[in-house]
Amino acid sequence: MSDLYPICRSITGDGFRESLRILGREIPLEMREVPTGTRVFDWTVPKEWNIRDAYVKDAKGRRVIDFQRSNLHVVNYSVPINRKMSLGELKEHLFSLPDHPDWIPYRTSYYKETWGFCVSHRTLQALEDDEYEVCIDSSLEDGHLTYGEYYLKGRVDDEVLISCHCCHPSLCNDNLSGMALATFLAKFLGRLSTRYSYRFLFIPGTIGSITWLSLNESEVSKIKHGLVVACVGDAGKSTYKKSRRGDAEIDRAVAHVLQHSGQDYEIQEFSPYGYDERQYCSPGFNLPVGSLTRTPHGRYPEYHTSADDLNFVQPAYLADSFSKYLAVINVLENNGRFLNTNPKCEPQLGKRGLYSTFGGRKDTDLYELALLWVLNLSDGQSTLLDIAERSGLAFSAIRDAANALVQHDLLVEIQA
Amino acid sequence: MSDLYPICRSITGDGFRESLRILGREIPLEMREVPTGTRVFDWTVPKEWNIRDAYVKDAKGRRVIDFQRSNLHVVNYSVPINRKMSLGELKEHLFSLPDHPDWIPYRTSYYKETWGFCVSHRTLQALEDDEYEVCIDSSLEDGHLTYGEYYLKGRVDDEVLISCHCCHPSLCNDNLSGMALATFLAKFLGRLSTRYSYRFLFIPGTIGSITWLSLNESEVSKIKHGLVVACVGDAGKSTYKKSRRGDAEIDRAVAHVLQHSGQDYEIQEFSPYGYDERQYCSPGFNLPVGSLTRTPHGRYPEYHTSADDLNFVQPAYLADSFSKYLAVINVLENNGRFLNTNPKCEPQLGKRGLYSTFGGRKDTDLYELALLWVLNLSDGQSTLLDIAERSGLAFSAIRDAANALVQHDLLVEIQA
Amino acid sequence: MSDLYPICRSITGDGFRESLRILGREIPLEMREVPTGTRVFDWTVPKEWNIRDAYVKDAKGRRVIDFQRSNLHVVNYSVPINRKMSLGELKEHLFSLPDHPDWIPYRTSYYKETWGFCVSHRTLQALEDDEYEVCIDSSLEDGHLTYGEYYLKGRVDDEVLISCHCCHPSLCNDNLSGMALATFLAKFLGRLSTRYSYRFLFIPGTIGSITWLSLNESEVSKIKHGLVVACVGDAGKSTYKKSRRGDAEIDRAVAHVLQHSGQDYEIQEFSPYGYDERQYCSPGFNLPVGSLTRTPHGRYPEYHTSADDLNFVQPAYLADSFSKYLAVINVLENNGRFLNTNPKCEPQLGKRGLYSTFGGRKDTDLYELALLWVLNLSDGQSTLLDIAERSGLAFSAIRDAANALVQHDLLVEIQA
Repeated sequence: MSDLYPICRSITGDGFRESLRILGREIPLEMREVPTGTRVFDWTVPKEWNIRDAYVKDAKGRRVIDFQRSNLHVVNYSVPINRKMSLGELKEHLFSLPDHPDWIPYRTSYYKETWGFCVSHRTLQALEDDEYEVCIDSSLEDGHLTYGEYYLKGRVDDEVLISCHCCHPSLCNDNLSGMALATFLAKFLGRLSTRYSYRFLFIPGTIGSITWLSLNESEVSKIKHGLVVACVGDAGKSTYKKSRRGDAEIDRAVAHVLQHSGQDYEIQEFSPYGYDERQYCSPGFNLPVGSLTRTPHGRYPEYHTSADDLNFVQPAYLADSFSKYLAVINVLENNGRFLNTNPKCEPQLGKRGLYSTFGGRKDTDLYELALLWVLNLSDGQSTLLDIAERSGLAFSAIRDAANALVQHDLLVEIQA
Repeated sequence: MSDLYPICRSITGDGFRESLRILGREIPLEMREVPTGTRVFDWTVPKEWNIRDAYVKDAKGRRVIDFQRSNLHVVNYSVPINRKMSLGELKEHLFSLPDHPDWIPYRTSYYKETWGFCVSHRTLQALEDDEYEVCIDSSLEDGHLTYGEYYLKGRVDDEVLISCHCCHPSLCNDNLSGMALATFLAKFLGRLSTRYSYRFLFIPGTIGSITWLSLNESEVSKIKHGLVVACVGDAGKSTYKKSRRGDAEIDRAVAHVLQHSGQDYEIQEFSPYGYDERQYCSPGFNLPVGSLTRTPHGRYPEYHTSADDLNFVQPAYLADSFSKYLAVINVLENNGRFLNTNPKCEPQLGKRGLYSTFGGRKDTDLYELALLWVLNLSDGQSTLLDIAERSGLAFSAIRDAANALVQHDLLVEIQA
Repeated sequence: MSDLYPICRSITGDGFRESLRILGREIPLEMREVPTGTRVFDWTVPKEWNIRDAYVKDAKGRRVIDFQRSNLHVVNYSVPINRKMSLGELKEHLFSLPDHPDWIPYRTSYYKETWGFCVSHRTLQALEDDEYEVCIDSSLEDGHLTYGEYYLKGRVDDEVLISCHCCHPSLCNDNLSGMALATFLAKFLGRLSTRYSYRFLFIPGTIGSITWLSLNESEVSKIKHGLVVACVGDAGKSTYKKSRRGDAEIDRAVAHVLQHSGQDYEIQEFSPYGYDERQYCSPGFNLPVGSLTRTPHGRYPEYHTSADDLNFVQPAYLADSFSKYLAVINVLENNGRFLNTNPKCEPQLGKRGLYSTFGGRKDTDLYELALLWVLNLSDGQSTLLDIAERSGLAFSAIRDAANALVQHDLLVEIQA
């Protein structure tokens, strides 16, 4: 994340390419290039934006606003400009946050050609009535939209989609934390043999998912579960935004993991505002894709400001988020449906060494309880997650019980 | 309401006719007359009751109870009587309210031929042991049951039923407030072009709705939504009693309006006791008819007493009730079902001027959010009310968003 | 219960037979004998266990542990032993409750051949380093599993199952209270003419229900409702554990009775741990069998200890439990489905004497309300329990209203 932080990313351009190259050190990411002007549903792939330098100089030639110090200073996708103007004219192109006078806001103008600078409110207020030299050395020209894709083949063609946006410049929680988590999740899963195939997308927000969906429309039906990863490194509690379906397996799997995490958490209903789940959950696709974050976008003061920096995101929170993603994948991978081979009355667990010898104790232990639940509900209808939900026991306990019962031929898995 | 207040109404008779005539100044009400003896389902249209005068005179000839001072003094539908009797005998025919010693109760005896007087408890206790002349100059003879009907033709034959009872004498909230609201609602809608046809019924309670249903059985299936109007002028919070179905569109529309009213309110499940919704919701009809009141019948101390007078009902509360009825009708009229013409990913709202130019702000505004919700859920299944409910946004915001999207060809209405 | 208390019961043996003989004084119980070795699903009927005496003597020949003082002292199903040993060796076979130093625990070892003694913790701690003579004069030999069955023929073959376990020795709430309640319920119902047939089972826990289900598999589908009776004599609140189905008629009937009991109560979801409902609700049978207790097994400190004695169970609590079982049976017996013969509008109840004469009162009474509810919901779909649940009225009020309406030909019962 430290390497990625200084790079000026946008929805297109060399900053995006450079970022993918850095991620490519960890996983064999494939880089895709889609030409400007390509029609993607109702949208068109925009011109490619690149920027070398930008500043505002006062009459004495001092850089009072300097892109070299923070790439947030330039409104993302600003068209080139190089001329002198009064403070009054300049101010119409300046953005600041009066409530947080030391922070630089993050602003974009992807689809209307204009320019602007973002500054701390203190800087804005210190600007004197002067003539200023305004320079943005950018280019907005036909080129490409770039994105990264990494596909892990599993035992079945059904896919789990992990999608993150990579189009924000120096913003750490909103952008880099998701990119980092997705990368290391991909690296981790790449070493395992999985049931599902996994597809990781590193894309520019909105236009990236629209482009991918448009180019891969025939493959979309393979996606059985999906998560949009973002804002996973701050100190806030884990928050899950459900898919549009609301009761998809991914929705239930994440809810189960959070319920059993022993930590505070929040489950939110779907809404059509947010990250790329907006596109995955558009009515024409309606994919089972939710978003597992910590504090959601827009809910923390540092959101979309220079305060979302390398201090705002902490390793412990990233690690905790990572373990929750893994736990969710563990549920998806193991959420089979089984048949009790001995459905009339309980089988005699004791003679198989699965049950304690001395009777009469006050409580059964959790392991024996998990065995009984799995036996009782494995009528061919219930998945292990169904059983975990109804029993109130953790999925891992239910899965361990199912494995033990399979070993004793008391349970057989039903192939989907 | 002041003009209607002094008239002695009952379930039949000239008081009812005179009341309809007064309402007829505002709307072209049609007056229906149904002869005594007409069989209406399990019931029979009763004899017509009229009354000119009634009193109890003491031995000195003073009117100690006088119908001219309040028509509540006579038990409604009392048979004629004119003779002298002891206080003891008289008392068996007197009704009072010990808990509210200054109030006169309201009592009826429609279906058993008897007579009686209602008096304040103070009056009752002041009666001395004397010989009293008791006179009720009433008639109970073959005649007619009268009711008023006003039909507004809309673009479709499907109907909204607005029904109120008009059979109570000097009672203001329970009777007159509903008659007034229904009349002015009819007058208001009469000036508009509506999608639904509207049927307003001004009827005697119970026997009136039974009679109307019996005479119009073949038309009943046109009623798609209905409200029984009563008790809409007191200071209490708005209260909605659901139809027997419980999840009819009218139930959801009223609940939505009350939820977004910014005021306290109450939603009650259906029960078979109440006003004429009892008949509309009988199992053989099971019409989607609820009742939107303020404090429901029987829940305020003034209910069915002389204290339910012109002071108990206030213009501000009537106006508030009126606006809620209009809001409900607005939902019903506009609750279309639409299809997103661009269901795969979001359409690009920005290029159509429907979305703000500068990105990166913390929140989207409500209007943009409404656009996204309408697009996301307009898959041909959801109505605008469904979308309003799921989004938590006001129906009016959802409807405005739908209108804007239709104008930009991003949405088309599905004809029912 | 006093007669049954001293007998040393187990899952097989003469104590069980003797107990059934005592119950046979009240009802004509049939005693069944199933030979050792009989295969019952995944289980095998075990050897029969009988015991005459058992003790631990110290070097001076004093019985420091004596089966004659409490049959709980011997681990149930202990194999015979008769030899001397050190305290150290003995201690490996002793069970006590450090938290309740005066109580003797209850332990069993049905399916592993071993032996042991249960003692109060005080006794355990008082044992000195000595040589002890350990004697258990028991036998574990081929014989029979015994259970009692009582079948009451009703008007239909559909059955209500009442099942209790009788395999615990001197334990009063967990065992004897259920046996007593079931016996007197059987005696009571035996004097009545019932709609349902009733089957009472007095069985050893687990192996008894498995054996009965195995031997009667073809009859099982007749069981339409069932209750497992146990722990019905303590001071705790009534607790109902639902059947696996969760919404069976028995589940709703018990919930209704408890809701209207005017007492505190608890409803628990099904779980596969507990008494014989574990077998009745195994997935291959999935019978609608719940369990109505007071404090459930394992939730009171006296559970499975010598403190669950004749003082712990009180007549008033037994009587209260009995009346709740009767109320549940009353619901099941009378839960018919009716058709309103006059479904369009209300019938005129007044002319039939079912409704008060004078109108205008503030409230209707509960009886009239029950009449209206039954009429309104008797559309052929709703049972009387459905109507009781929706109206919030007691089942008895609804049933009385239905009876009155049937008498006036306003309602007819639909034959199932």
